[in-house]
Amino acid sequence: MKKLINQPENVVEEMIEGIVLAHPEYVRKLKEFNVLVRKNSPITGKVALVSGGGSGHEPSHGGYVGKGMLDGAVAGDVFTSPTPDPIYEAIKAVDGGAGVLLIVKNYTGDIMNFEMAKEMAEMELIKVDYVVVNDDVAVENSTYTAGRRGIAGTVFVHKIAGAKAETGATLEEVKETAQKVIDNVRSMGMALTPCIVPAAGKANFTLGENEMEIGMGIHGEPGTHKDTLKTADEVTEHLVCKILEDLKLKDGEEVAVMVNGLASTPLMELYIVNKKVNEILWEKGIKVYKTLVGEFMTSLEMAGCSVSILKLDKELKTLLDATADTPAFKSL
Amino acid sequence: MKKLINQPENVVEEMIEGIVLAHPEYVRKLKEFNVLVRKNSPITGKVALVSGGGSGHEPSHGGYVGKGMLDGAVAGDVFTSPTPDPIYEAIKAVDGGAGVLLIVKNYTGDIMNFEMAKEMAEMELIKVDYVVVNDDVAVENSTYTAGRRGIAGTVFVHKIAGAKAETGATLEEVKETAQKVIDNVRSMGMALTPCIVPAAGKANFTLGENEMEIGMGIHGEPGTHKDTLKTADEVTEHLVCKILEDLKLKDGEEVAVMVNGLASTPLMELYIVNKKVNEILWEKGIKVYKTLVGEFMTSLEMAGCSVSILKLDKELKTLLDATADTPAFKSL
Repeated sequence: MKKLINQPENVVEEMIEGIVLAHPEYVRKLKEFNVLVRKNSPITGKVALVSGGGSGHEPSHGGYVGKGMLDGAVAGDVFTSPTPDPIYEAIKAVDGGAGVLLIVKNYTGDIMNFEMAKEMAEMELIKVDYVVVNDDVAVENSTYTAGRRGIAGTVFVHKIAGAKAETGATLEEVKETAQKVIDNVRSMGMALTPCIVPAAGKANFTLGENEMEIGMGIHGEPGTHKDTLKTADEVTEHLVCKILEDLKLKDGEEVAVMVNGLASTPLMELYIVNKKVNEILWEKGIKVYKTLVGEFMTSLEMAGCSVSILKLDKELKTLLDATADTPAFKSL
Repeated sequence: MKKLINQPENVVEEMIEGIVLAHPEYVRKLKEFNVLVRKNSPITGKVALVSGGGSGHEPSHGGYVGKGMLDGAVAGDVFTSPTPDPIYEAIKAVDGGAGVLLIVKNYTGDIMNFEMAKEMAEMELIKVDYVVVNDDVAVENSTYTAGRRGIAGTVFVHKIAGAKAETGATLEEVKETAQKVIDNVRSMGMALTPCIVPAAGKANFTLGENEMEIGMGIHGEPGTHKDTLKTADEVTEHLVCKILEDLKLKDGEEVAVMVNGLASTPLMELYIVNKKVNEILWEKGIKVYKTLVGEFMTSLEMAGCSVSILKLDKELKTLLDATADTPAFKSL
C-alpha cells in the first residue's frame, strides 16, 4: 500500500485538521466531531445545507463548505457513512432559524443515519428536510444501495441548491430546486484501477492489465460489466449514450457537463474525454452551457472518470452561474 | 498502459481542444498551434504574461490563462519543450503594446526555445523579457537542467506576477515582482510511483513495492535518493527541512504554502501532509498566511507530492490575494 499517511486509523481526523489549517478563512471544525461548518455559521435567516458521507471522495464534501454551497459537511470513516450524532451536531451548528436541508447520496447507510439525525434535530424543533441524490444510471441496486447510487452529480446539487439558499429562499423552495437538479442530472463512471481503503490495506477489487470496469461505483461497487481497454472516445461514447438513454434530451436543449476524475486519471485525459462528450452532444443538437472538468467526487486513488449531464432551465442556469466561494469550488 | 486516450501521438492536440470546449469564456486556441491565449487577447496597455513547457503537468499551464494570471500558455509535446515558433506566435497574439514577460521553468530546452522566440519577437519590435523559475532545492543540475529545476513554485510566479500586470505596472516592474517571487520560493517533491509518457508506453523509471524517491523531478528525473516507504509525517519533515535549510526563514516571518499533488495522490493525503507542514512551521514561529492544497503542477499519473514555501512581504501578500479568474485557479 503506497500512501502518504501515518496511522491508517487516523487518516480522516488528520485530513480534517489539514483542511482547517489550509482554509481557516472558510471553515471551522466542530469540537469532537469530524464535521466542518462555515466559519461564520449559523447564518441567521438563511436555509442551511448539510451534506456528507464516507470519506475518500475529497474534495467532497468538506471542500464545498462556503458561500454559495454547503454550510456543513460530515465526514464518516473512509467509505463508511457517518453516524447520526455528528450529522445531528452539524444540523444544530448551522441552523440559522430558517431550517436545514440535508443532501444525501443514495446509500442505505447514509439514508438511515441522515434520517435519524433529522429526527433528533426535529425533537429540538429545528426544521429539517432532505433530498436523496441518485444520479448514477449504471445499475439499479448495488452493494450499498437500494435503487440508483448517488455520485458526482451531487456536486451540481450542492452548487445550485447552495445558490438558491443564498437568495433567501425558504426551506421548501430550496428543497424544490435541489430536487429539480436531482430529477435532471444523470451520471455514469468507469474505472481503470481499484483503490485501497487504508484500514484494509489491499485493493477493493481486481482488474486485469488490459481490463476496465464500466459503470463502477465510487466505492468500487461493480458496474455493468468488465471490458477490455478501449479508446477514450469509445469509453466516452458508451457512458454518454447510457446517460442520454435515460435523460432523454431534445434538440436545442441546454446542459451542464461534468467530467469528473476519480483521482489517478490525469487532467489531460479528462479533457480528452470532454472533447468527445462535446462532439456527441453537438451531433445531437444539444447545447453545452457550462462545463466542469476536474476532480469533484473522487474514490481515493482509483483511476477512471465519470461523466455527468445536467439538463438546464433558466433558473438552474442562473443559480449555476451564481457566485460560489469555497475551498474546492469557486465561481466569480 | 492504462490511459483514457485515443492515439498517443494526438494527446496534446485533443487535450487542447477539450480545454477550449470546456472553457470558451476564458481561452481561445491559436490556429495551427497548441497555444492557448485569453479570449480577449491582446489587452491594450497591459503587460502580457506567457508561460508554457512540455505537456503532462496540467493544469499547468493552460489552466492558468485568464484574468490575474497568464495571457498565453504554450504546450509542447508530453515532457518536451515547445519549439520557438508557437512561443513566438503566443507573444505576438498577446502583446498589447506594453511588452511581454515570459515565465520559463529552468530546463535547458525551455530556456533555449523561449530565448529564441524572444529574439524573433524583438525583431518585430515587441518588448520581451523573461524570468527563469528554479525553485526545486532537491538537486543542482539534473537530466534536463543546468542549475536547479523549476517545479510547482512556478504557479506562485504566475499568480503574483499576473496580479502585478493587472495593476498597470510596466514590463520592468512586473519582471521585478516575478523575480522577487522566484528569489523567495523553494520547493521539493517526492514520488511513490513513476508515470508513463503515452508515446513511450512504459514507465519512465522504476520503484520497488516498498520504495519511494525523494527529490524526484516532475519528469521523473532522479532525486536525491531512494528510500523505503516512510510515514507522511516523516516524508513531510524531510521535504520541509530541506526547503528551510535553503530559504532561511526567521521567527515571525510569513509564508504561503503549496502542497501540490503530482496526480495520483488523493487530496486526503495532501491534507495530511499539510497538517504536518503547518506543525513544523508553527514550531519554528513561522506564520502561514495562505495555503494552497491540490494539483497545480502534475506529472501525468505519478503518485507523490511536492511542498512549496514562499516567503512573503506586503506586496506579495496583496498580489497573492488579488482577484484571479482562470479555469484552474480562482481567487475572489
